[in-house]
Amino acid sequence: MIEQLVLPDVQQSEDIRGIELWKVGVKNFEIPMQLTQKNGEKQSVHAIATMSVGLSKNRKGVHMSRFVLQLSEWSRSRTFELDLRPFLQEARDRLDAQSAHVELDFRYFIEKKAPVTGLSAPMAFGCKFDASLLRNGNEEDYRFILSVAVPIGNLCPCSKEISDYGAHNQRAFIRAQALLDTSSNAPIVWIEDLIAALEEAASCPVYPFLKRPDEKHVTETQYENPKFVEDVIRDATLVMRDFAGIKGFSLEVEAFESIHDHNAWAAHRENFHETS
Amino acid sequence: MIEQLVLPDVQQSEDIRGIELWKVGVKNFEIPMQLTQKNGEKQSVHAIATMSVGLSKNRKGVHMSRFVLQLSEWSRSRTFELDLRPFLQEARDRLDAQSAHVELDFRYFIEKKAPVTGLSAPMAFGCKFDASLLRNGNEEDYRFILSVAVPIGNLCPCSKEISDYGAHNQRAFIRAQALLDTSSNAPIVWIEDLIAALEEAASCPVYPFLKRPDEKHVTETQYENPKFVEDVIRDATLVMRDFAGIKGFSLEVEAFESIHDHNAWAAHRENFHETS
Amino acid sequence: MIEQLVLPDVQQSEDIRGIELWKVGVKNFEIPMQLTQKNGEKQSVHAIATMSVGLSKNRKGVHMSRFVLQLSEWSRSRTFELDLRPFLQEARDRLDAQSAHVELDFRYFIEKKAPVTGLSAPMAFGCKFDASLLRNGNEEDYRFILSVAVPIGNLCPCSKEISDYGAHNQRAFIRAQALLDTSSNAPIVWIEDLIAALEEAASCPVYPFLKRPDEKHVTETQYENPKFVEDVIRDATLVMRDFAGIKGFSLEVEAFESIHDHNAWAAHRENFHETS
Amino acid sequence: MIEQLVLPDVQQSEDIRGIELWKVGVKNFEIPMQLTQKNGEKQSVHAIATMSVGLSKNRKGVHMSRFVLQLSEWSRSRTFELDLRPFLQEARDRLDAQSAHVELDFRYFIEKKAPVTGLSAPMAFGCKFDASLLRNGNEEDYRFILSVAVPIGNLCPCSKEISDYGAHNQRAFIRAQALLDTSSNAPIVWIEDLIAALEEAASCPVYPFLKRPDEKHVTETQYENPKFVEDVIRDATLVMRDFAGIKGFSLEVEAFESIHDHNAWAAHRENFHETS
Repeated sequence: MIEQLVLPDVQQSEDIRGIELWKVGVKNFEIPMQLTQKNGEKQSVHAIATMSVGLSKNRKGVHMSRFVLQLSEWSRSRTFELDLRPFLQEARDRLDAQSAHVELDFRYFIEKKAPVTGLSAPMAFGCKFDASLLRNGNEEDYRFILSVAVPIGNLCPCSKEISDYGAHNQRAFIRAQALLDTSSNAPIVWIEDLIAALEEAASCPVYPFLKRPDEKHVTETQYENPKFVEDVIRDATLVMRDFAGIKGFSLEVEAFESIHDHNAWAAHRENFHETS
Repeated sequence: MIEQLVLPDVQQSEDIRGIELWKVGVKNFEIPMQLTQKNGEKQSVHAIATMSVGLSKNRKGVHMSRFVLQLSEWSRSRTFELDLRPFLQEARDRLDAQSAHVELDFRYFIEKKAPVTGLSAPMAFGCKFDASLLRNGNEEDYRFILSVAVPIGNLCPCSKEISDYGAHNQRAFIRAQALLDTSSNAPIVWIEDLIAALEEAASCPVYPFLKRPDEKHVTETQYENPKFVEDVIRDATLVMRDFAGIKGFSLEVEAFESIHDHNAWAAHRENFHETS
Repeated sequence: MIEQLVLPDVQQSEDIRGIELWKVGVKNFEIPMQLTQKNGEKQSVHAIATMSVGLSKNRKGVHMSRFVLQLSEWSRSRTFELDLRPFLQEARDRLDAQSAHVELDFRYFIEKKAPVTGLSAPMAFGCKFDASLLRNGNEEDYRFILSVAVPIGNLCPCSKEISDYGAHNQRAFIRAQALLDTSSNAPIVWIEDLIAALEEAASCPVYPFLKRPDEKHVTETQYENPKFVEDVIRDATLVMRDFAGIKGFSLEVEAFESIHDHNAWAAHRENFHETS
Repeated sequence: MIEQLVLPDVQQSEDIRGIELWKVGVKNFEIPMQLTQKNGEKQSVHAIATMSVGLSKNRKGVHMSRFVLQLSEWSRSRTFELDLRPFLQEARDRLDAQSAHVELDFRYFIEKKAPVTGLSAPMAFGCKFDASLLRNGNEEDYRFILSVAVPIGNLCPCSKEISDYGAHNQRAFIRAQALLDTSSNAPIVWIEDLIAALEEAASCPVYPFLKRPDEKHVTETQYENPKFVEDVIRDATLVMRDFAGIKGFSLEVEAFESIHDHNAWAAHRENFHETS
């Protein structure tokens, strides 16, 4: 690159502190990102990226612009699949690094049908890809965590039991982090399928578009199906354990109680550790 | 001040664009702030301040450090009352300005009793002081807007009516901006009283601490008292119209629907205009 | 609609409080939204919508699902232009209302070239459409406010003047609300043009992708062009006054000072009032 | 408690899913919290609490009100020290649980002197206590993580090197999580000392109150002391390694670049794992 002929390259200079750094890169860089939906169509999402590499102990810094260049090029010409190995290998090569990491946060639209009238509207779900590729001697350690945030309704079993009529219910969220099986023949974990499966753990799912027959159905379904956050997270745990392609998981359920200004909350994890 | 002997004062230099500016100052400056509660005791709150003055058209800039100095001095030694005229007059004098403005955002604790057991716990409410002092020839235009955000529960009348059992309910917020009567003999508008009055517009208030008899009461009260956001804001409007010491108001009601991931919302204002 | 044959319509019932409400609707509803770029191409953005109508004093409530239905239909089949009159007229008809309002918040991508190397990458800008249509007797009052948030760099003139070398600089934001001329023959105000014009008020614009020759240019340009927030907002005021198609405006400049944890801030408005 | 005589206790009922839950409790509960400053004085902070216990596999739920009761009682009558073992033991007893966890987020004020004039003002720092107590057979596993977020200024070495004059600088944050030595004779890690030590890793600290001689000093100090985020995090790593009372740590440095709208970022951890 031309500027390296004329301008000093401070990042390339040597560092004497002898500290190899875990992650160095860019945060909060926004790009349009093409995704493949379960139905085969493409969806363009607005992604907020954090991208980094490990920095060897004798190098002063990384060339940050290379992250932006790669993210921009992929944004223009590539589709971001659940397998981000090629993306991370390219990052390691561009940055001359042993490890690379990327986090992509985005809102993903799914067309959702009302339970009775069947009328549909788009609904946005918070999702995240979190992938790492590390060289361990001759080994390659590749990890991929798919996160989804699923809004639901939950109705309090205690309130229903102790009250002569009614029961407090509220909007709640199931937040799941799925550690995916990245072996070559592992089944694909579609965002659409993971969200649909987790909605089964609710008192009732929520919907973007409801006419009165739908609202009647949702209200009565919630009442027939009371669940504490403890019940929701246990049922979500059974979902995650059985989900083909998921090796481990972390779950959080948070209910925005309609009788308090604070939230009921539960967290659980199995075979899960934070991103390496 | 010593540095003016040795260092040039760029802010004092003349500006030729001929534009008098509405507000120039500091934003997001945090201070501990002493408030007087209705019961006479002091409460120390964590305030986030935005403070500014008008800038005359021939002056290049203001001395920002003077805002920080005044806020710090008041934080140490003064109580912030609902009457911020002395604070704003001091700001105008320090900055040699015609107008001064201050916004103080804070969370305010009120000890709240459960409706049946009477057991109590502190509950935090979002509050804001927004005050302005302008010179209009020989006139002084002083305005004070008190804002409170009141979490409540609301239960949907439609859902109750069309369903064989149950009714969806959820946490909602009433956000009120009260334009206060600042005449010398106007009654004091206590935060405690304004919040309590607005809670009357709910299907049922929310509480920090509820035992089962309290939860039964809250659940049944919500069910007996169904309200759309339209009902809540109309009842809140009646509250604000009748509240001694309030000349005008802006209201917002937002319900975090337990059957949707979007919110039901209403806004209404009477005799209200934005801060001058 | 079928459910009206079988289920009671509570919203349609009469209200006796006699309060006509300013705005009733939905908040925080997310949709994909097609926009036309200045270059004629379409951009799909992720919009967060607040949509409402006025409610007459004798009606208990509105049918919220109709907002969702209209937003979904437009999301699928229509392009959202700067003229939202047809959208608001349709809302008034669907909801049988005298007034309609819509706010659409979104991040908008603009391909931005580095100043020396000319290499480009997408950069996201916060934008908002805020439109209202009111019936005043035989008159129609239509208003449209276009908002943009423009990140920039600013370098402190005082710091440069008093220091033997260097000068503190920081990321800052120009936030502009433009009240558009909505007469039939008014020029179109392109987001791309408004942002580019406002960047001229900075010490130097910011860029997504910079190689070293670009970084040298940006650094030196900032140093040659020191500006207080007062200078930035005055220059932005001159931009807004002269911008064809803009009748009034509100401006805010906020600098995330690199010598403080609080921000320098200025606000100014001309021929501007909040949304009706 | 009286209501247990008259109302069924659903939480106490048996669960058949056989899933022991990691954490069940309340989130986002706000309380005033008394802390002891290094100088021995008390500071009342506004804490946002997440408090939970482990739930045995045969129990349906926990009694959420007991968390609120304990937090309220401690808020009234106790000081929250760096040793939260008594707090967590009480939680386990109240909830009849094997493990207890608490997170307390708060802003902490430190009086900060300007570097030349010595004039001082309060400055708020984001802090967090995160403590866990688990029973492992006869063992007790107690962990405490102290987190602080330290705003600083950093100046880009590359920009300084390649530019004829000036250098871009910006506000940045050092976020540190310190895993404390909780042995009986371990030294106390004062928030004041940890923040002061981490500020040494900056190009220059930031201050709430600066007069012109101070601003000159800060500007020139930044220029004399250029640092990439890589340099800041390496110097912060040396600080954390040598800090008496800290056994392990996680660090993040994020710089709000004044030449970009995205951030430069680095993360590093040693002898650190997430809360058990």
